[in-house]
Amino acid sequence: MFKHLSLFQRLNVMSLKDKLAWRFATKKFDASKKLNQTQLTELLDTVRLAPSSYGLQHYKIVVVEDAEVKAKLKAAAYGQAQLTDASHVIVFAAETSINDEYVKKYIDEIAKVRQVGRENLAGFEQLLSGVVNGLTQDQKTVWAQKQAYIALGVLLTAAAELGLDACPMEGFDAAQFDEILGLKEKGLTATVIAPIGFRSEDDAYGKAAKVRKPHEDLFITV
Amino acid sequence: MFKHLSLFQRLNVMSLKDKLAWRFATKKFDASKKLNQTQLTELLDTVRLAPSSYGLQHYKIVVVEDAEVKAKLKAAAYGQAQLTDASHVIVFAAETSINDEYVKKYIDEIAKVRQVGRENLAGFEQLLSGVVNGLTQDQKTVWAQKQAYIALGVLLTAAAELGLDACPMEGFDAAQFDEILGLKEKGLTATVIAPIGFRSEDDAYGKAAKVRKPHEDLFITV
Repeated sequence: MFKHLSLFQRLNVMSLKDKLAWRFATKKFDASKKLNQTQLTELLDTVRLAPSSYGLQHYKIVVVEDAEVKAKLKAAAYGQAQLTDASHVIVFAAETSINDEYVKKYIDEIAKVRQVGRENLAGFEQLLSGVVNGLTQDQKTVWAQKQAYIALGVLLTAAAELGLDACPMEGFDAAQFDEILGLKEKGLTATVIAPIGFRSEDDAYGKAAKVRKPHEDLFITV
Repeated sequence: MFKHLSLFQRLNVMSLKDKLAWRFATKKFDASKKLNQTQLTELLDTVRLAPSSYGLQHYKIVVVEDAEVKAKLKAAAYGQAQLTDASHVIVFAAETSINDEYVKKYIDEIAKVRQVGRENLAGFEQLLSGVVNGLTQDQKTVWAQKQAYIALGVLLTAAAELGLDACPMEGFDAAQFDEILGLKEKGLTATVIAPIGFRSEDDAYGKAAKVRKPHEDLFITV
């Protein structure tokens, strides 16, 4: 579609749906192409707005550009070339131990941003503490991981919107990632990753027809 | 921002980042406003393109418009008004028991869409079967739920892009939802929901400043 136009021209006339049809899980990145600072900033600023349960954002987003670190991560991801060929590797790291201190910091931030007295947020803080303290550590981790997947969905959509390529990946050794990136001591665990950059023209998957469930298999209308 | 323009005019000049800043978890929908068929189709067509692990899309998306069903879902969601005031309620239902038959159907679809001989997909089918059969039912469910959260992220982003409001919600009784929507017998379980529609002008949350972690708290640069 719009093949006679440059990518930049196409992006201006494509709907978000067109852009999501244009994207694909890039297997082969063009290692010579890097995101510029404007592109990276726009992408991260957009992902920062991703929704999360109660607004808690109980994950961190690690942005890896360092070549040596990317090489280590590649070894911990079964040697997959995306880890080193991509411009940056985005690692979504879920909070494993969200607690009262985390909640307090969040409530402090709300009070600051919305300029409301902290006493007006006491009820909300109590509610959040109750939720958080009612969970086992495993439940906390899975809950935080799900929020990280929302942010992944936003990242992949925003990347397509900006004409950037990405490859969402679950195939990596999380324990090794945690070790390489020093996540465990921060109460975090690597959950899902997305190398980002620019597709190589000879990535055959970029030309393959997109396979999605037919509407009648995906949607149930009530 | 752009307050002198109509919403339609604003959408044309806003970046995706601006649009995500405009969206919020709508608490009060205008019950008199419904998505038209064009809006609903565009939204669902976009969400259909959401990425998932291996492209398996191991969830279904239930689109509830029926007033009686919405009323029942409201009762199963602690009486929250979004369930009945919203134009439609979107329920993401994860596959709990993905198996060889599911994989076979997916491989059939790839063969059809890409017009490749099924024998060329035997290796991929074997790989997927190995992955799927190596999981317990709990692991299957959590894996599928995470994919549903990617689709949720895409839905929320696409809704904002289209100027539609939405409220992602985890606060509902999944077992009751499964019962009301007949999901269990289909091997599905309600995972996360999003009423969609149009914000009421007197939803105070729509005017509150958005709270997100400061960059230095959310991102780790390596």
